[in-house]
Amino acid sequence: MSTFREDGALALEWVASYLEGVREAQPVLAEVEPGAIVAALPAEPPDEPEAFSAVLADLDAVLLPGLTHWQSPRFFAYFATTGSEPGVLAELLSAGLNQVGILWRTSPALQELEDVTLDWLRQLLGLPAEFRGHIEDTASTGVLAALAVARGLHPDRRAVLCSEHAHSVVDKAARLLELELRKIPVDDDYRLRPELLDLEGACAVVATVGTTGAAAVDPVPAIADACAAAGVWLHVDAAYAGSAAVCPELRLRFEGWERADSIGVNPHKWLGVPMDCSALWTRRPDDFRATFSLVPEYLRSPDDAVNLSELSIPLGRRFRALKLWAVLRCFGRSGLQERIREHLRLAALFEGWVREAPGWEVVAPRHFSLVCFRREGPDEENERLLERVNASGDVFLSHARLGGRYVLRLAVGSFRTTEDDVRLAWDVLRREAAA
Amino acid sequence: MSTFREDGALALEWVASYLEGVREAQPVLAEVEPGAIVAALPAEPPDEPEAFSAVLADLDAVLLPGLTHWQSPRFFAYFATTGSEPGVLAELLSAGLNQVGILWRTSPALQELEDVTLDWLRQLLGLPAEFRGHIEDTASTGVLAALAVARGLHPDRRAVLCSEHAHSVVDKAARLLELELRKIPVDDDYRLRPELLDLEGACAVVATVGTTGAAAVDPVPAIADACAAAGVWLHVDAAYAGSAAVCPELRLRFEGWERADSIGVNPHKWLGVPMDCSALWTRRPDDFRATFSLVPEYLRSPDDAVNLSELSIPLGRRFRALKLWAVLRCFGRSGLQERIREHLRLAALFEGWVREAPGWEVVAPRHFSLVCFRREGPDEENERLLERVNASGDVFLSHARLGGRYVLRLAVGSFRTTEDDVRLAWDVLRREAAA
Repeated sequence: MSTFREDGALALEWVASYLEGVREAQPVLAEVEPGAIVAALPAEPPDEPEAFSAVLADLDAVLLPGLTHWQSPRFFAYFATTGSEPGVLAELLSAGLNQVGILWRTSPALQELEDVTLDWLRQLLGLPAEFRGHIEDTASTGVLAALAVARGLHPDRRAVLCSEHAHSVVDKAARLLELELRKIPVDDDYRLRPELLDLEGACAVVATVGTTGAAAVDPVPAIADACAAAGVWLHVDAAYAGSAAVCPELRLRFEGWERADSIGVNPHKWLGVPMDCSALWTRRPDDFRATFSLVPEYLRSPDDAVNLSELSIPLGRRFRALKLWAVLRCFGRSGLQERIREHLRLAALFEGWVREAPGWEVVAPRHFSLVCFRREGPDEENERLLERVNASGDVFLSHARLGGRYVLRLAVGSFRTTEDDVRLAWDVLRREAAA
Repeated sequence: MSTFREDGALALEWVASYLEGVREAQPVLAEVEPGAIVAALPAEPPDEPEAFSAVLADLDAVLLPGLTHWQSPRFFAYFATTGSEPGVLAELLSAGLNQVGILWRTSPALQELEDVTLDWLRQLLGLPAEFRGHIEDTASTGVLAALAVARGLHPDRRAVLCSEHAHSVVDKAARLLELELRKIPVDDDYRLRPELLDLEGACAVVATVGTTGAAAVDPVPAIADACAAAGVWLHVDAAYAGSAAVCPELRLRFEGWERADSIGVNPHKWLGVPMDCSALWTRRPDDFRATFSLVPEYLRSPDDAVNLSELSIPLGRRFRALKLWAVLRCFGRSGLQERIREHLRLAALFEGWVREAPGWEVVAPRHFSLVCFRREGPDEENERLLERVNASGDVFLSHARLGGRYVLRLAVGSFRTTEDDVRLAWDVLRREAAA
């Protein structure tokens, strides 16, 4: 263990230094050419053992230029995330324990901590007690699982409906499950138009609270009414925005989600938990079990506990609950609320700057910490502007297409982001727009 | 960062001490009652932040009794695994970097290191250069992905075939993909009987090299012939045994797998990589891309790199390649070979003891590091024997049903297991059998 302690101290110091310097890390979006990292690594595996320090040296020398700095407070693309310090250290513990959650007995602590932390998070988000949660790797898997359950309940109904702004994970799940995907047009605020919902032949609807393009909020109460009347499964995809429900004053935006059959929220997006940790709750765990349970002879146990693997697609799971537990405890309800509120404040500030600046426009109502905006003028100019901004290395933003127009997106979501970082983004945008 | 450094030192020391003491950790199989961990944790989430040290304290006080010690050298159940020291530390780095592999540009280093390490591993296992690999969380997802691709190639063929000893992940994938699963009987060595393969209406066959029950090896060359003749996709599931192909002298057992369309091997099983890291290679990456590629507007990039998310089900992925890279470098080809060979030696030794002992029998040919055996006598006695052995806390073994009989399985697979540990298992078995 002396090597482990020494190597571990090196690894820990590497991470500490990385996080210390990540604000200044340039460029935020990696600038390497495709194939450059492959070319810089040996084409053949090593025959003889090397020291761990050699791995660290190559992490610096070879991999570092190929990193896009998701931990940077100046990362505003897609949805910004945080691998918070308690979450990072919990991953070390989790790897050290190397639990494999297959059956309850293969790690009672893993399964029961997953139960408890998902129930804690349920309470933090204000969801009713009848929801039972577990952790998936990503929302892709969660949506796939929920739609598989819905399909099984209605063998004769093969359609799933969502708004045209729903995430592509719904398309992918429908393709895998061979369901017909019907995309419903949105209104001027990019919300699904519930009067266009025709649930004939539908087994499920996916409503989104916080779409990827504009963080729009579908009218969940009206959708829930329609689903209830037709006996159709309702999945609410709140992968990004769901974490904001820790703040009671924001709960109005989640109205109706408590009526869903299943709900997905990604603590690895906006709640400080490192990749990967996607929460999936359902009020119908028995339907999940009917869909996924398969316990072959070699996995039968003398105990009669329900195993988490009976509720989801993968058989084995990592001890992901440990990092969620560490984050919920080390920040607490108040700490998480504080950060979400600060992100909303920063997004509002940025939105104000854009609104007041001649030649710029805000192009979608702002519901959470995402601002959608553009330069007045053609799409091509905005596209080139974004490329220049990202090429500067100072910040990283991404884009979407809203109402046919190319728009820029600034998503505040890192626990490390300060007002100065947001101001820098605005300075860089104006500088590059003037260039 | 001072808190991170201090908390990190505590976490690191926790893991070092855990690994130092894990050989003596008792019981290997957790003995808590279902619900005990839930009951010992607060029912409600904390309102205010707590110190990370409080999390560590509860890990000791509350969770430790609920751990089944997968890291124990005396864990012989299912397939024994190792979260090796370099792999554990690489997970710390990975969490610290918090890369999210969605598009190539969101982490060129993640994607290209995944390309390189999977190619290194391909070479180590002696697979041809036309195989392209990527990492899935588990073999469940890998098999699901491969069968989804196969299904897409033959819209009119809805059957998948495998032996009755194939892993239940095939059942689960078939259920999700709505494929008819046809299980083929096995011969006396628990191998699929290729003369019974009727590929009419089949889109895929799953052949297993190293079944879960008996580590049996299906006759892959004959199956590959049949698949080639019928234009049917061949997936080889070598989740456990595949790692043994690092030893050239064992490659005969893998004859024909180089003709597969896709192959799954789990480095998190027998290659020292912590959960989760399941390798999936295919010689037909274009077919994977046709099945899984979906790049919505908000994910389009100026570069034209192929993104790993276009080859698999989840959109986002962790930086799993880092731990595989660390393990391959810190052990090297020779270090991995040495461990696999030692495990085979230990399994052979144990097998010899069983063979020579009156009242005991070996019940399946041994191909790798798994020994299937039983006490002569009724199934119930063997079942009770296994319960007593596991309840002793000294070791943990599991069971299977072979040819209708209940059999005990001893799987050697931990890098920490020594001859003394295997001898202890044998001593405990004989002691409990005599009790």
